[in-house]
Amino acid sequence: MLKVSIAPDGKEYPIPTAEENEKERQLLVQITEEQRTKGRKIVAVQGLGFVGCIMATVIADATDKDGNPIYFVHGHQRASKRSYWKVPVINSGITPVSSSDPEVPEIFHRTVVEKQNFRATSEESVYSLADIVVVDIQLDATKPAFGEAEKGYCDITHFREGMRMLGQHIRPDCMVLVETTVPPGTCQQIVKPIIEEEFTKRGIDITVNPPLIAHSYERVMPGANYVSSIRDFWRVFSGINQKSIDLCREFLTDVLNVEEYPLTQLDNTNASELAKTMENSYRATNIALTLEWAKFAEDIGVDIFKVRDAIRMRKGTHDNLLRPSLGVGGYCLTKDPVLANWSMGALFDLEGSLSVAINSVNINDTMPLHTIEIIQKDFPDLKNVRIAILGVSYLENVGDTRHSPSETLVRFLRKDQAVVKAHDPYVEHWDELEDMPVAKDIASVLEGTQVVIFAVGHKHYKDLEPKDLIDMCKTRPLIVDCSNFLDDVKINKYKGLGCKVRGLGKGHI
Amino acid sequence: MLKVSIAPDGKEYPIPTAEENEKERQLLVQITEEQRTKGRKIVAVQGLGFVGCIMATVIADATDKDGNPIYFVHGHQRASKRSYWKVPVINSGITPVSSSDPEVPEIFHRTVVEKQNFRATSEESVYSLADIVVVDIQLDATKPAFGEAEKGYCDITHFREGMRMLGQHIRPDCMVLVETTVPPGTCQQIVKPIIEEEFTKRGIDITVNPPLIAHSYERVMPGANYVSSIRDFWRVFSGINQKSIDLCREFLTDVLNVEEYPLTQLDNTNASELAKTMENSYRATNIALTLEWAKFAEDIGVDIFKVRDAIRMRKGTHDNLLRPSLGVGGYCLTKDPVLANWSMGALFDLEGSLSVAINSVNINDTMPLHTIEIIQKDFPDLKNVRIAILGVSYLENVGDTRHSPSETLVRFLRKDQAVVKAHDPYVEHWDELEDMPVAKDIASVLEGTQVVIFAVGHKHYKDLEPKDLIDMCKTRPLIVDCSNFLDDVKINKYKGLGCKVRGLGKGHI
Repeated sequence: MLKVSIAPDGKEYPIPTAEENEKERQLLVQITEEQRTKGRKIVAVQGLGFVGCIMATVIADATDKDGNPIYFVHGHQRASKRSYWKVPVINSGITPVSSSDPEVPEIFHRTVVEKQNFRATSEESVYSLADIVVVDIQLDATKPAFGEAEKGYCDITHFREGMRMLGQHIRPDCMVLVETTVPPGTCQQIVKPIIEEEFTKRGIDITVNPPLIAHSYERVMPGANYVSSIRDFWRVFSGINQKSIDLCREFLTDVLNVEEYPLTQLDNTNASELAKTMENSYRATNIALTLEWAKFAEDIGVDIFKVRDAIRMRKGTHDNLLRPSLGVGGYCLTKDPVLANWSMGALFDLEGSLSVAINSVNINDTMPLHTIEIIQKDFPDLKNVRIAILGVSYLENVGDTRHSPSETLVRFLRKDQAVVKAHDPYVEHWDELEDMPVAKDIASVLEGTQVVIFAVGHKHYKDLEPKDLIDMCKTRPLIVDCSNFLDDVKINKYKGLGCKVRGLGKGHI
Repeated sequence: MLKVSIAPDGKEYPIPTAEENEKERQLLVQITEEQRTKGRKIVAVQGLGFVGCIMATVIADATDKDGNPIYFVHGHQRASKRSYWKVPVINSGITPVSSSDPEVPEIFHRTVVEKQNFRATSEESVYSLADIVVVDIQLDATKPAFGEAEKGYCDITHFREGMRMLGQHIRPDCMVLVETTVPPGTCQQIVKPIIEEEFTKRGIDITVNPPLIAHSYERVMPGANYVSSIRDFWRVFSGINQKSIDLCREFLTDVLNVEEYPLTQLDNTNASELAKTMENSYRATNIALTLEWAKFAEDIGVDIFKVRDAIRMRKGTHDNLLRPSLGVGGYCLTKDPVLANWSMGALFDLEGSLSVAINSVNINDTMPLHTIEIIQKDFPDLKNVRIAILGVSYLENVGDTRHSPSETLVRFLRKDQAVVKAHDPYVEHWDELEDMPVAKDIASVLEGTQVVIFAVGHKHYKDLEPKDLIDMCKTRPLIVDCSNFLDDVKINKYKGLGCKVRGLGKGHI
């Protein structure tokens, strides 16, 4: 039986056969030789996920002072059922990621079709051809118990396999740049020994050819500036030895906008890895703080959002203060504190923990339950209560549903046997909650509902007039504002229409 | 026996007799009448401490568009042995606070001697003469167990007495502006009922004359811009009713630089009180986060200060990240989270806690013990080890020792029977640690020492050349840098001189 990989649009792509792989190997060698004659250096990007596929185009898009591409980029994606489809899709010049950033389709077309210096493959022998490998394998934190991030760990099996694959293929002088967010210590204590071991097996003398390994983390943001957030932003980097540091600096200088966003070099890869997990822990902690105070504010008649604005007047010292919301989602703030906390014991055999950051993850992860508490003030028993959730992504005006707090909200509302419907203008399919349909037609979600939750601050919802929303409901639902959506004027309109209004962190209502 | 109050300079001031008080009462009436004829409104400032005495001068210094003073200010300080001396000192035109801000002596001289519209008194009848009372009574948090801020509470006895005194004296139309940082809920639940009770006792109909109570917190910083930090800075305010809000806005607009630093009005006094304690909790949490990561960095060869600089490149989102140090001192960050956490249960009967902020206070309070751990890597038994502490104030280039982390350091080092000496160029007398002399002569502190702790980042210590310091020591001490004081060049100089160097958060040494 022919194995296929199915793209999100439903189209099927057959996974290559052994014979096709053999042909691909020959083709890769041929393409690489041609590209080298053009004076281009060869980069392989490992993992064509959320970061890797965009990073690959940014590298391919980099030009020398004469406007000629500096690099040819092989993007490597394993031939799995889940992800292989990206290879043929990319090679047709189409982006495999959906994004509101207009630069995404442009840069794919420009590099794949026009410049023809970015090509995807599922053949791992590609690594033997590269001068530089950029590692963009995902590395997740596993949280085995809800609200107990202190038990979280990092399953590095897959990441180690990826590094072993590199050690088995790369040339001794190939620079491996780890761009994945990893637990502090990973380059030194995981990547280096694996590659050294594989080099030694291959007869490479690691005293003469020590592996070249660097770390530099991206600060990508989904949304309207997706490509730019990789290219036009500050970067931190380091390497496990001086040559790695020098090669990494040279490479990043070639491909990123370092004139406007200068590079920051740190002493060692532990520092660079720690910086990434710390900066996201800073954000996660910042939010957790506001969540606890938002609950307090609710109980004492205070609007926490106005308080936040008052505090943020102190520019430069207090303006990073984030706002409370339904909860915290996405890929970074939910896991990076766990990666760092796990690393203390697992990679360094240290006692103690990063208690501030870990407690914050727990507060953030469990925060959607607070919205349920708000609803239960009016509906103590949620059984059969009809609830409409507006917004299921984790961020305003973006369709990214990874670790979305709406997911926790739905799971727990269903546990209490509420009847939940969801709407999101940006989400085609809720990957993490397969059995939960996400309607495109807001009226179908609202009709007959008893509770409306403004879960995510999408601009579509901001424009909704209370009267129009109530007309769609054909009921007088409880309105729950989790995103500081409703100003005092709109709140009064809803009240005037006979609705009760409650707001997260809005005790003054 | 005549009671006296002794000023810090040792001078004795007799506390007024009953007869003198009677004369003072008559004088107050006379002065006030004179001032009213000049068209001035009368302000009484309750408490001439760190904030009150400066606020009093700022109010007195405010002028109308013709340059004439708007207010006459009576500063009130109780006739206690500990504080009465401030009254005669202020009335001689001398500042009762020591400060590096040159504006402090100037503004005292200008208002007391030149304009003659600020005068101090210990007579509480002064409140019956005022249009506005500004409350600057200190309100402390009590932490009954070291490192267990969750057990902290706020002893409001003294504050309540102060409010009762106002209720017994003030005119029904007098606006009481609470400037003290108070637990959220204080104006509504403590100040208002006390004043209502006293009004009622006095036969004032509180339905006709409801008390006028507002809250607006200062954001004072000791140091070179002490006066300016009160006058030229953003203010948040609110009141318990519309008239209080309006009077408060008018008063603050008269006395503060609201053109450059616009006022922020919040819905109610709970919000204003919460804002102050939250903004300091934000800072306290921010520091606690960096402290935990600093320890981690030390263990894995990372310089946390370079990491911090790398993260702070992200202006507007990450540049509030504070730096780790010996610990956290001062009057605000150490107590404000405790005030808010206590208020939840004590004033609002709420369950739960502000766990992020409270855990942070514990981390910050116990952090000086980490410096002892650092020393114990080289001196496991501290008994009879000679240790020199450079800096005992809680802040760089300031002589303020309130809740200084050096205090915790000294207490615990002494517990382990180390022989501790201390130096601080800004501190005349260590009020909180009476039996610990603070030398002015650094050589006497350093001579023969085995450990030098750079505890506070005073500029005096930055200029110290390693060779000069070692010459004063006449030993090869362990150098412990708690303030990111020593750059890599200086560290190498100390090493070259035969010293071992360790640094808080500096794992790369």
